[in-house]
Amino acid sequence: RVYDLVEPLHPADVADLLELFDRDERHQLAAAITDLMTSDVVAELNDYVREEMMEALPADAVAQIAEQLETDDAVQLIEDLDEVDQQAILAELEPEDRMAIQSALSYPEETAGRLMNRDFVAVPEHITVGDLIDFLREGRELPEDFFEVFVVDQRHHPVGTCNLSWILRTPRNISLGDVMKRDQTLIPAMLDQEEVALMFQKYGLISAAVVDEDGRLVGQMTVDDIVHIIAEEAGEDALLMSGAGEGDINEPIREAYSSRVRWLVANLGTALVASLIIAAFGSAIEKLVALAVLMPIVASIGGNAGTQTMAVTVRAIAMNQLTRSNTGRILMREFRVAMLNGATIAVLIGAATAVIFTPLLGAVIALAMIINVAIAGLAGVLVPVAFDRLDQDPAVASSVFVTMITDSMGFFAFLGLAVVMGVV
Amino acid sequence: RVYDLVEPLHPADVADLLELFDRDERHQLAAAITDLMTSDVVAELNDYVREEMMEALPADAVAQIAEQLETDDAVQLIEDLDEVDQQAILAELEPEDRMAIQSALSYPEETAGRLMNRDFVAVPEHITVGDLIDFLREGRELPEDFFEVFVVDQRHHPVGTCNLSWILRTPRNISLGDVMKRDQTLIPAMLDQEEVALMFQKYGLISAAVVDEDGRLVGQMTVDDIVHIIAEEAGEDALLMSGAGEGDINEPIREAYSSRVRWLVANLGTALVASLIIAAFGSAIEKLVALAVLMPIVASIGGNAGTQTMAVTVRAIAMNQLTRSNTGRILMREFRVAMLNGATIAVLIGAATAVIFTPLLGAVIALAMIINVAIAGLAGVLVPVAFDRLDQDPAVASSVFVTMITDSMGFFAFLGLAVVMGVV
Ligand SMILES: [Mg+2]
Ligand SMILES: [Mg+2]
Ligand SMILES: [Mg+2]
Ligand SMILES: [Mg+2]
Ligand SMILES: [Mg+2]
Ligand SMILES: [Mg+2]
Ligand SMILES: [Mg+2]
Ligand SMILES: [Mg+2]
Ligand SMILES: [Mg+2]
Ligand SMILES: [Mg+2]
Ligand SMILES: [Mg+2]
Ligand SMILES: [Mg+2]
Ligand SMILES: [Mg+2]
Repeated sequence: RVYDLVEPLHPADVADLLELFDRDERHQLAAAITDLMTSDVVAELNDYVREEMMEALPADAVAQIAEQLETDDAVQLIEDLDEVDQQAILAELEPEDRMAIQSALSYPEETAGRLMNRDFVAVPEHITVGDLIDFLREGRELPEDFFEVFVVDQRHHPVGTCNLSWILRTPRNISLGDVMKRDQTLIPAMLDQEEVALMFQKYGLISAAVVDEDGRLVGQMTVDDIVHIIAEEAGEDALLMSGAGEGDINEPIREAYSSRVRWLVANLGTALVASLIIAAFGSAIEKLVALAVLMPIVASIGGNAGTQTMAVTVRAIAMNQLTRSNTGRILMREFRVAMLNGATIAVLIGAATAVIFTPLLGAVIALAMIINVAIAGLAGVLVPVAFDRLDQDPAVASSVFVTMITDSMGFFAFLGLAVVMGVV
Repeated sequence: RVYDLVEPLHPADVADLLELFDRDERHQLAAAITDLMTSDVVAELNDYVREEMMEALPADAVAQIAEQLETDDAVQLIEDLDEVDQQAILAELEPEDRMAIQSALSYPEETAGRLMNRDFVAVPEHITVGDLIDFLREGRELPEDFFEVFVVDQRHHPVGTCNLSWILRTPRNISLGDVMKRDQTLIPAMLDQEEVALMFQKYGLISAAVVDEDGRLVGQMTVDDIVHIIAEEAGEDALLMSGAGEGDINEPIREAYSSRVRWLVANLGTALVASLIIAAFGSAIEKLVALAVLMPIVASIGGNAGTQTMAVTVRAIAMNQLTRSNTGRILMREFRVAMLNGATIAVLIGAATAVIFTPLLGAVIALAMIINVAIAGLAGVLVPVAFDRLDQDPAVASSVFVTMITDSMGFFAFLGLAVVMGVV
């Protein structure tokens, strides 16, 4: 009965279903629907779930699944397994598939060379539309699906590209050279997936040619694979900024623990810096406990304001919208927003404090708030920009620093002003 | 000279270039390259930049640009302008284009009906591949680019779909009914763009048919438009969780101010709750100022731990990975990670406090830390899940609540335990 319920589902839905269960239930379900567990289902599984399921299978079973997949999906199946398992599986593959996968694995992770599909259609420039259609009808060694035909010269360098819709609307006797577009976006095999994804987004690509260092056509990337990369790259920043690592609910607990606890320890360090500042004002707090009551407010709003600006900056950097040429302008923009925000909050908290405590204390907290929110605005831009210029991912590193700055400055500005302005 | 530099660029690059400048410089540049300011460039512009530039143009100039665009892009051009401008532009359009745009505007924003392209290729089932190719070669009223041919019955209901590559590899005399795939993903015109984007991702779609309430084919969505939606939807959560609103660096300052300050005011409310708790322990702090020094550490680490779990949960909800059936399991998972994190940080801060202050105070802060991190883990799952069940976007609303819980509980657990365990 389980079988009958699962049978009509799309492979992507079967994969989603498997992901809903925990490990043991999942293996039971997989056993109950063995012949629905096609290679397509495996290709659609979440990375962690797939890895766990593949580790439970013997090498020849994994090899059999890999043989049925296109190279790009077969590589994904194998790349996360450990070296020994990889070798055992590769040994079971037919020589041609093995070579394709080994070639992919020779490129670094998350590059076009690793992710590309090695099946594509490439033809010489001089043939006609009719010749091409006849060639395609013979149908030898064609990819399952393709969206453009690449035109190459004798050295296998791309010279142009034809969308299939252009071919279909052109009479048989026209030469491909007259149909193709000469300007095309070429993807270097060593390019990082994040840049590849941005090129697809920017130029609205459906597929694109991948070339090696000598400019030879070696593969293609298609947008159905890119959408996953776009979603992953765009979504990861929220997780990275919070220090949640991969942030995948299928990640094993010990991996989730190890990536998150590192972040919490780093934040413990920044919290200690803030504590040192408070400790320096210990006698002021002893004299006026209201200072201890109010000081977290200044730090907390500063932290929020800094996080807002940081999120905006990190996003703009990720989208290639923030460059050297407009950093100054964006910094000014964020500073102006910060001054407006700071002034608004300062009026609110200053007035409330003046009423509940004293007008002088109200003035102190209002001033401290403006200072801290302004600093937050500047730090929210400058910290991620600095990490980006140092070739560090701004989403990973900025948050700890921005928080440290806004916490410390919040306590320092408030307690310092309280002393200087004679509240205690 | 500016003209010569800009001329070789792709429209998407010209658009990016315009975005780098501020308002005045941008209009100067646009004036210097008037005939490179094609409709394609306008279509590629950032929403805010485009709106600002269109508002500076007379209605007939905007109408002229709109006429050259496909309907989906023309709609984007017009939808953000105010009612009066919209009507003026619509009046300048040819009746056919006007009707198409009005029909799009009759659907709510961010639905398939608003975003779809009204140009597509639909043919009856009985024709052959040869008939289809001949029809396409006549080339009347074809979209600029298309990736599949929809097969419809007499009532214009979709019955199947043919990828162009299947058509190209099939002999002329075969009937389309034998080439087409009958299972296809149909998109209801009222579906939200977020769900449309998830369907494209999940099923690896290049294009898909959009149907009205009666099941009639009314348009298509293509993946080149979807990639922007995927990037936007995946990227917005980082901005929403920080309270940065749209978070676009091109957003006018007063709009950025108004969306961010609302958030800061909400956070001021939560900070006041935390202050009330501190105030309740005022006499304890007066007796032992070390409490004021240490209390922000417990609140701060709890806040970080809560934000981590919340980011993971929000992402899982956005990707449809967290459903009623596995919420319990994910809650347990996050609680276990939280206990590991809490225990680790508790040991570190407890030991340090025991050495610097007293062993008893070390025990108090360690225990408070475990309690607060555990609560943070639970709140990080339960708060976004609750908002999701109430049909509120969990990315927007969760953060204020999670922070309020971890701040308040941090101060309460630490100061409360200090009193109960007899530190003061
Ligand atoms: Mg899935
Ligand atoms: Mg992988
Ligand atoms: Mg990368
Ligand atoms: Mg693929
Ligand atoms: Mg795929
Ligand atoms: Mg990445
Ligand atoms: Mg990134
Ligand atoms: Mg752009
Ligand atoms: Mg819009
Ligand atoms: Mg929506
Ligand atoms: Mg379009
Ligand atoms: Mg949205
Ligand atoms: Mg969303």
